[in-house]
Amino acid sequence: MKPVRLTACATLAALAITLSARAADPLPSWNDGAAKKSIIEFVEKVTKEGSPDFVPPNERIAVFDNDGTLWCEQPLYFQFLFAIDRVRALAPQHPEWKKQEPFNHVIAGDMKAFLAGGQKSLMTVMAASHAGMTTDDFDKIVKDWLCTARHPKTGRLYTEMVYQPMLELLAYLRTNGFKTFIVSGGGVEFMRCFAENSYGIPPEQVVGSSGKLKYEIRDGKPLLLKLPEVQFVDDKQGKPIGIETFIGRRPIAAFGNSDGDQQMLEWTTGGSGARFALLVHHDDAEREWAYDRNSDVGRLDRAWDEAKAEGWIVVSMKDDWKTIFPK
Amino acid sequence: MKPVRLTACATLAALAITLSARAADPLPSWNDGAAKKSIIEFVEKVTKEGSPDFVPPNERIAVFDNDGTLWCEQPLYFQFLFAIDRVRALAPQHPEWKKQEPFNHVIAGDMKAFLAGGQKSLMTVMAASHAGMTTDDFDKIVKDWLCTARHPKTGRLYTEMVYQPMLELLAYLRTNGFKTFIVSGGGVEFMRCFAENSYGIPPEQVVGSSGKLKYEIRDGKPLLLKLPEVQFVDDKQGKPIGIETFIGRRPIAAFGNSDGDQQMLEWTTGGSGARFALLVHHDDAEREWAYDRNSDVGRLDRAWDEAKAEGWIVVSMKDDWKTIFPK
Repeated sequence: MKPVRLTACATLAALAITLSARAADPLPSWNDGAAKKSIIEFVEKVTKEGSPDFVPPNERIAVFDNDGTLWCEQPLYFQFLFAIDRVRALAPQHPEWKKQEPFNHVIAGDMKAFLAGGQKSLMTVMAASHAGMTTDDFDKIVKDWLCTARHPKTGRLYTEMVYQPMLELLAYLRTNGFKTFIVSGGGVEFMRCFAENSYGIPPEQVVGSSGKLKYEIRDGKPLLLKLPEVQFVDDKQGKPIGIETFIGRRPIAAFGNSDGDQQMLEWTTGGSGARFALLVHHDDAEREWAYDRNSDVGRLDRAWDEAKAEGWIVVSMKDDWKTIFPK
Repeated sequence: MKPVRLTACATLAALAITLSARAADPLPSWNDGAAKKSIIEFVEKVTKEGSPDFVPPNERIAVFDNDGTLWCEQPLYFQFLFAIDRVRALAPQHPEWKKQEPFNHVIAGDMKAFLAGGQKSLMTVMAASHAGMTTDDFDKIVKDWLCTARHPKTGRLYTEMVYQPMLELLAYLRTNGFKTFIVSGGGVEFMRCFAENSYGIPPEQVVGSSGKLKYEIRDGKPLLLKLPEVQFVDDKQGKPIGIETFIGRRPIAAFGNSDGDQQMLEWTTGGSGARFALLVHHDDAEREWAYDRNSDVGRLDRAWDEAKAEGWIVVSMKDDWKTIFPK
């Protein structure tokens, strides 16, 4: 632990933060190693007043992918698992689905046949489960699902499958004046249902994919109706675009796990001054999952090559993380 | 002034804020009257712990229109004046514009002929001035313009034509734990060039209209190119949609001045619990401008009728504001 030094400008509040951040290891679930060391070195240099790398607090923007970076994404993105559960819940109201692809496969639980339908099947199920209701209704449906649905392999609530080391990292960055954002290909309204409780990230700091909305007055009350049309896809090249449109400031730190995050990490590190980029590598089949270059979900291939070429940090879940999930 | 009461949980920081907010009139440029009184009553009731109207800080979202609400919008939205100046600056590189509508009118300074071209002329000039460069270049161009361009009537810098009473209102709300957002039909990237300096509103709290962007790597450096296509229009019905997409939480207070803000105020007041809606009425031809139902810019007609029906506060610039601009 470094000694606490007081400067003339140190306020009581700053002192309290400094003390609490330095009193103990801020990243207790991280093994001591290159990844943890590089995170702490980065945070210390950008927050040290007078340092050539100092970044004022309003510019300390850190962006995090969600699926595979903050919570699990196997055997399928959790939002798709929600969509599948939702289609099954709605099936009694749609007898025609029994003879209609891909709904028939979903209802029969034939995931292989469903997934064989590719992007088109996924989008059909997404539209059926994510549109045709108000934003308030959708919020309630997702929150109910998150309170009750269980992961097919672990039997846990989905919100229990967040990564403890990343929760500590989020808190550590915020303690050091960073503003933490999610920038994910996931649906923005879906993620906002749990981001504040699970990650301490308020709705206005969640950037994601979105569908078109329609404003209506019904029975004298205004509402927003979710339409089955895509407004914005926040993935790959869409991530820097989402950052520019929603945040309007280039991040100084970016955290991801797959090829979908490559451009976000490029955009972040392409700015001047100190920058930080990190990829989580899923290499722990025992405690989580092991997948990378050949996975349909969360593929890590080109971004991994770029990480090696550019010196981005690659975290081994197996070697760098003491624990995976919160106790 | 109310006596300061200390509770067991009051921290030093909270006490300091309370003292500074209550030590003096938080809205010195507002005349004592119904508008000022209603603002203060609203803020006091939603911030008083234990009150039935108490709103926790993370839900204290306040949204402000920009043109005509935080700064002037006459004789034309300032962003259009920027676009016109920009076309004139670019004209030497485009000799073909001399014979091409509406550029020929802009170059000749014939505003009447230009405006006769309506929406199509405006959009052509907007595309020529707002697309075809990187986001970084655009940022620099706008900031240079804001430092040098002068308003045709007042001769002031445009950023000097912000409303002092609204600056005090923004600060007062923030002192009381509100998060203040701009939600404007103006271009999001244009507004972000001055919102932080002029209003204390950081880029990530500016919601506006946007154009499509393209991510590219040029000479090994990532960049975002501004395309001449509209991505999102944050006006009228677009405002509640922009609020839902960008902020993801329904505001409890909304401030506007024109029919373009009507749906934003409806959406804000349509939620449960204490809500606040206010329209600025431009009725001061001497110190600013006087316009409402028949104005092409900032028309206040249907929203005014709804304000009367719904009990939204209508501020008279003439009667409610001691001063208009910062000294």
